[in-house]
Amino acid sequence: MQHLVAVDWGTSSLRGARLAADGSIEEERAFDRGILTVPAGAFADVFDAHFGDWMAAPETLCLISGMAGSRQGWIETPYCECPAGLQDLAQHLAWVPRSGRRRIAVIPGVSCEVAGIPEVMRGEEVQVFGGMQLLSMQAGLLVLPGTHSKWVRVRGGRIQGFSTVMTGEFYALLREHSILARTLPPTDDELDTTAFDQGVALALRGTSLLRTAFSVRTLALFERMPPKLLSSYLSGLVIGEELRSQSFDGEWQVVLIGSGSLTQRYERALARRGVAARRVGAEATWRGLWALAQLIERA
Amino acid sequence: MQHLVAVDWGTSSLRGARLAADGSIEEERAFDRGILTVPAGAFADVFDAHFGDWMAAPETLCLISGMAGSRQGWIETPYCECPAGLQDLAQHLAWVPRSGRRRIAVIPGVSCEVAGIPEVMRGEEVQVFGGMQLLSMQAGLLVLPGTHSKWVRVRGGRIQGFSTVMTGEFYALLREHSILARTLPPTDDELDTTAFDQGVALALRGTSLLRTAFSVRTLALFERMPPKLLSSYLSGLVIGEELRSQSFDGEWQVVLIGSGSLTQRYERALARRGVAARRVGAEATWRGLWALAQLIERA
Repeated sequence: MQHLVAVDWGTSSLRGARLAADGSIEEERAFDRGILTVPAGAFADVFDAHFGDWMAAPETLCLISGMAGSRQGWIETPYCECPAGLQDLAQHLAWVPRSGRRRIAVIPGVSCEVAGIPEVMRGEEVQVFGGMQLLSMQAGLLVLPGTHSKWVRVRGGRIQGFSTVMTGEFYALLREHSILARTLPPTDDELDTTAFDQGVALALRGTSLLRTAFSVRTLALFERMPPKLLSSYLSGLVIGEELRSQSFDGEWQVVLIGSGSLTQRYERALARRGVAARRVGAEATWRGLWALAQLIERA
Repeated sequence: MQHLVAVDWGTSSLRGARLAADGSIEEERAFDRGILTVPAGAFADVFDAHFGDWMAAPETLCLISGMAGSRQGWIETPYCECPAGLQDLAQHLAWVPRSGRRRIAVIPGVSCEVAGIPEVMRGEEVQVFGGMQLLSMQAGLLVLPGTHSKWVRVRGGRIQGFSTVMTGEFYALLREHSILARTLPPTDDELDTTAFDQGVALALRGTSLLRTAFSVRTLALFERMPPKLLSSYLSGLVIGEELRSQSFDGEWQVVLIGSGSLTQRYERALARRGVAARRVGAEATWRGLWALAQLIERA
């Protein structure tokens, strides 16, 4: 392999990076072409339009993670059941047929089951393995905050289990569609850390977001908080609820993977629960796909 | 007083009843004319259009509870602070000015404060006092399920404190605007009690709706539950979350006030927490306003 074209094709975005044989990033691209924008049968064309030039170089391998492997994606790949390591992913790749001399594979997702309820992820598993590599870790609790946050437990380099928390989606629902939207200004101001901390603190001493959320309205009604601080406060309530409801099982450090602005909020909120955080950015995806490419080429 | 015109003017609906001097209901009316549909300054006209004929009878008193007393309503009435009894409401009525010989008053709301967070209600306090009268109670825990459920603690005939749980609104947000909406059929089928119970059970052993909600999606994805049962399951998850997060403080019976179909669901879910329920319907509002009218006429 001379080059790796690493692609993260999610529900709402399409990102790619060209990596040299040593794993260094030569170029990155991002497009608003999530799988929801791609009609069935048009995935190959969309891929070529955005990454065709990168694939022209000889001995180039392409690995694609994310929702491209779902039923609504390019090729449906199975879920690897937990415990699942990088080697398990490598053994269940779905190679894109009729690609000529080009080698393009879609990564399987990972699933587990807790008390009869299935859990699934697609794409986050690559970030987890990349994050572990970047931090030279084999075990830990990793958090990928987002629309649907994932809490992932890794032991011996394999994902043992994980859970999904709909934090970002609940924030957006309350922000845009609930009665609280009437009280909040139309757009989010910059984060006010004091209001955010107040929200986190209330959530941590509460028992459910169902009960704490109404405070956004009453604090506004009684003019206890200026409207421009309410979205920071709500963000604190929702992230605080995510942390309140998590059992840390004596673990006092977690790894946060994601964008800087979001992982900073989590780091701040985690500190209130006495939990330290190490942060890793979007490079975790490229590192995870690169590690997977090493395994494939070695096999 | 020969007659009482009892009116419950809420955010989205306008209901009224004409009561005889002995409290018996002579006639009831309901309209889609919640305060959100009434332009400022038009409340008197809307009132006359719907209840003017009832007010024509001599010695008729009209008492109005609900959001008609809010800033966006007919006349803004203050909140009575807890502990608040019927007598406190009677002392803080807002009489509609320039009503000629007609006597029309708007009931104040009730407020309390828990750990720096204000709580408010308008209309539910009348249902609480009415429900207590109907059941000849002076103390207890009362639950008014709805868009914003209220949990109300009464001692010595006065409301000591209460909290707001955004259960109905969270259900609607998830049902209509979240990723789960894609999995759910467009309209709700009749309640499936088995699926409902499954949702309640998961919520009661869970730690947050943020974590349990994603199961609606994965149960559908793995075809563990037919799509037509998912809305019953989601209803169980949300109501179960409300009950999980409530401290019953050794109280093993509550009073449920509201529509039959909704209070039945709560009764069913409460049984799983080992809590019994007595149910009271919409007549609680009329009884509460009638009890208040007795106090006013006696004064």
